Amino acid sequence: MSAELIVPASLLKQQLVAVLRAWGVPDDQADVTAETLTRADLLGIDSHGITLIPLYADLLASGKVTPGAEITVARAFGATAVIDGGAGFGEAPAVRAMDLAVDLAEAHGIGAVGVRNSNHYGAAGVYALQAASRGFIGLSMTAVYGASIVPTFGREPRMGTNPIALAAPAARNQPFLLDMATSTIAIGKLKLAMRTGKRLPEGWALDRDGRPQHDPEQALSDKLMTPLGGSREMGGHKGYGLAAMVEVLCTMLSGASYAPLRPADAKAYNVGHFQLAIHPEAFRDKGDFESDLDDFLDCLRATRPADPDQPVLAPGDPEHAVFARRSREGIPIPHTLIDQVRAIARKAGARFTLDEAGS
Amino acid sequence: MSAELIVPASLLKQQLVAVLRAWGVPDDQADVTAETLTRADLLGIDSHGITLIPLYADLLASGKVTPGAEITVARAFGATAVIDGGAGFGEAPAVRAMDLAVDLAEAHGIGAVGVRNSNHYGAAGVYALQAASRGFIGLSMTAVYGASIVPTFGREPRMGTNPIALAAPAARNQPFLLDMATSTIAIGKLKLAMRTGKRLPEGWALDRDGRPQHDPEQALSDKLMTPLGGSREMGGHKGYGLAAMVEVLCTMLSGASYAPLRPADAKAYNVGHFQLAIHPEAFRDKGDFESDLDDFLDCLRATRPADPDQPVLAPGDPEHAVFARRSREGIPIPHTLIDQVRAIARKAGARFTLDEAGS
Repeated sequence: MSAELIVPASLLKQQLVAVLRAWGVPDDQADVTAETLTRADLLGIDSHGITLIPLYADLLASGKVTPGAEITVARAFGATAVIDGGAGFGEAPAVRAMDLAVDLAEAHGIGAVGVRNSNHYGAAGVYALQAASRGFIGLSMTAVYGASIVPTFGREPRMGTNPIALAAPAARNQPFLLDMATSTIAIGKLKLAMRTGKRLPEGWALDRDGRPQHDPEQALSDKLMTPLGGSREMGGHKGYGLAAMVEVLCTMLSGASYAPLRPADAKAYNVGHFQLAIHPEAFRDKGDFESDLDDFLDCLRATRPADPDQPVLAPGDPEHAVFARRSREGIPIPHTLIDQVRAIARKAGARFTLDEAGS
Repeated sequence: MSAELIVPASLLKQQLVAVLRAWGVPDDQADVTAETLTRADLLGIDSHGITLIPLYADLLASGKVTPGAEITVARAFGATAVIDGGAGFGEAPAVRAMDLAVDLAEAHGIGAVGVRNSNHYGAAGVYALQAASRGFIGLSMTAVYGASIVPTFGREPRMGTNPIALAAPAARNQPFLLDMATSTIAIGKLKLAMRTGKRLPEGWALDRDGRPQHDPEQALSDKLMTPLGGSREMGGHKGYGLAAMVEVLCTMLSGASYAPLRPADAKAYNVGHFQLAIHPEAFRDKGDFESDLDDFLDCLRATRPADPDQPVLAPGDPEHAVFARRSREGIPIPHTLIDQVRAIARKAGARFTLDEAGS
């Protein structure tokens, strides 16, 4: 038996819907949440697809996530709005916020929507692409309910991995897509290093005294990640600043809760997001932006490579390639994760169908 | 004699105005350009103050910078606009664009203004602070007229050091300020390494085969900089993506010219900028954003330090500390630069007064 089951996207989404509904998520929100997670898996962002279900089960068990609450527009002014996520899962309010940001950008050239009282929202890139699929530039950021990034010169975490994603529509090409955490590496890389017995290079994580951590297991348990750039000498203060910028736009601007200052007995995590959309036609004649973006992407790919066997990629190329393949062939899911989802579905009273058409 | 002359900001600005006027820059534009460069020097961003004058003289000599042209609003829609810089120096159109972005944000909650047909605009952070001084969040980005950042896996440059700056107003504190190039290090660090005979660490620059460059002199002449993060293993693809994001928002969105595709005989560099402003009061009740930002900045500074003698700084702390000191004591300018400015002033027919009240 292979270590993975290959599951069609439709079946993956159906399983996610079943679990979410069993958890009390209303039908429309369950659908949009499942769709968002499935898209992350289709894009190859494996850390933000169905693999989140065990985490979401834990969040639910904490009593601080309340599925079923209404998502409301708490504030609206001009080309901006603030959405209250009602303390449910983050995907549905985030999708609604980006949709509203695009509507506002259609009317005003640009639109920005903050989200507060939300939770983990999955992959930032999915929201950026949501705007791009409507012909708009999309920028999506989120804060995180717990801190794991250590400020430059520090030895305790002060921000989450606070991601930034930007997508932009092209004409001939798939959209430009940047989707990055502001930490040097993703947690998944620590797990991989642990499995393969690899020592961590300097600049990935810190020990409790603020020195480089080389042991992947300890790094995973301490969660003291460096900001992008790593050490001060390598520009780590820039990654720190970027993570802080995301915190300002997601948490302070929307009125969400800053993790290190959140009381332990707070009733909800009150996570914040920031969704921004720009209409290229407000700035350029119709089609000119998309055509210039095509030329840019082509020029990046035509960069002479250091190694002829490893061509230069344009931002988004890896995700779009995986998306095309997985849309055709299905999404590989490790059997260990299948087993976790089966147990979670059973406990929630949801049908388990993930392995029905798998190969 | 010390290696530096200490010059009051007013005298520095006066000298800059004199040179700019002698070059044919109209009085109002000369004033705003000089003010922008002086603020960079006051903030300690020495690479983007008066030190730019020799570069600006070279740009002028290239015939592709045309001081004196009118700055016009080429396009306006809702909360957005595009400004045409008239191929003059970049500061005046950039200041006007940020002012307009703030006006738009006052009316619509958010405002974005692209600038095209511009040139080098100095320090991004000065524009972000311009918005913050009016009580708005300011985001400023610029493309660069020449390429120096090498995409991940590549061995030729495809983007400039494409900076990102964000400033946000607090109540008790000076504004939050992030001002960073999307390269791992600034060119200035290469110069410093050359002067001190230091070997460059891996991840700062590349040689023409795409391998790490350790020789600072060669790195300065080749201008093959790594994107923030450095190597792929250390997250360099994220810095590459950020630099590309800046290019999309500054060049493709405003209709400016992408350096690697600009014809050698182009009449102007047609550099693009992106200025965005957000009104906190559109998102929060009056004062709440600023107060939450204060708590955030205080919390960052209170992070336990790795080294007790090096406390953790909040983004902007170094710049604000230098600003306060230099506003009191003056701005140190190396005598070598003083000599360059004297020669440039003489050639332009401008009075040289920089050394009049120096100490």
